[in-house]
Amino acid sequence: MARPSDTKTRIQAAARELFLAQGVRNTSLKQISDRLGITKPALYYHFASRDDLVRSILQPFMDELEAFVAGREPTDARRLLDDYFDLVWRHREVFMIILNDPATLAALDLVDRIWEWRRRLAALLLGPDPSAAARIRATVAFGGMSDCVVEHRALPFEEVKSVAVGAALAALAA
Amino acid sequence: MARPSDTKTRIQAAARELFLAQGVRNTSLKQISDRLGITKPALYYHFASRDDLVRSILQPFMDELEAFVAGREPTDARRLLDDYFDLVWRHREVFMIILNDPATLAALDLVDRIWEWRRRLAALLLGPDPSAAARIRATVAFGGMSDCVVEHRALPFEEVKSVAVGAALAALAA
Repeated sequence: MARPSDTKTRIQAAARELFLAQGVRNTSLKQISDRLGITKPALYYHFASRDDLVRSILQPFMDELEAFVAGREPTDARRLLDDYFDLVWRHREVFMIILNDPATLAALDLVDRIWEWRRRLAALLLGPDPSAAARIRATVAFGGMSDCVVEHRALPFEEVKSVAVGAALAALAA
Repeated sequence: MARPSDTKTRIQAAARELFLAQGVRNTSLKQISDRLGITKPALYYHFASRDDLVRSILQPFMDELEAFVAGREPTDARRLLDDYFDLVWRHREVFMIILNDPATLAALDLVDRIWEWRRRLAALLLGPDPSAAARIRATVAFGGMSDCVVEHRALPFEEVKSVAVGAALAALAA
């Protein structure tokens, strides 16, 4: 018999796949347990509800983003944009799951948190008391780059990263 | 007695104000009719439901965006970005109402439509068969500019526009 922690990971992997393919709202816990050949109670043993399961899938992304903005020293722009792009790209599937499920966005209060993270990223880049113009440019840079991860997720990582970071740097220097 | 069309406009104005201040989900039709000193049936005469009312408030924005992408000839980048910025800025309150109400985003299928509009804008800018790199830069430009309207809506229009469009143009030329 699989260890409980393995089952948990398998549930998350199956859920992720189904959420991505057909949306959170079109995916029932029964579909997930069917796909894994486990009983619904076995699934409920690990996750009390679908929301709970969604949250557990998003958590690593949110934790990493939080650690990223909290743990960083001010650094040069290219390095910050490079590392931010890597992080968001790595979690792009989760990003898509959230974007396509506004109910989750609402339940986790994510819209406000995402804007807050962006503001803290801009502060890392710009230092204290940036001008309005500098803040506007930072919004173009971070906002534009984040959209690339969603819009161009099917293109090769290296190409999207190099062009998007280059465009974001140009926006910052405008 | 007010003409029906006046009442309808007054209902929309009051709803817009309340939606913006406290969110769609925290606003009941009763609050709206109370604020106007009309009865709930008088409100229902114009709008069958809150969703119906939200939709009527969003409609002008969606119609204008549709007309913008449909009716335009390919033109130079600055002009296109300038005009797009003006349009989105003019509707920034509606933009905020939608952003803060993911349920509305879902109900109106807006996430997909917004991406589709962006793709058509990029096509106007880039012509047929653009390179992947050109499309990535266009995503940074349009995505970043749109975010500025939300993030910097309290700053003066002229400043946000000139800096945001400048940064977007720099991203396109990167």
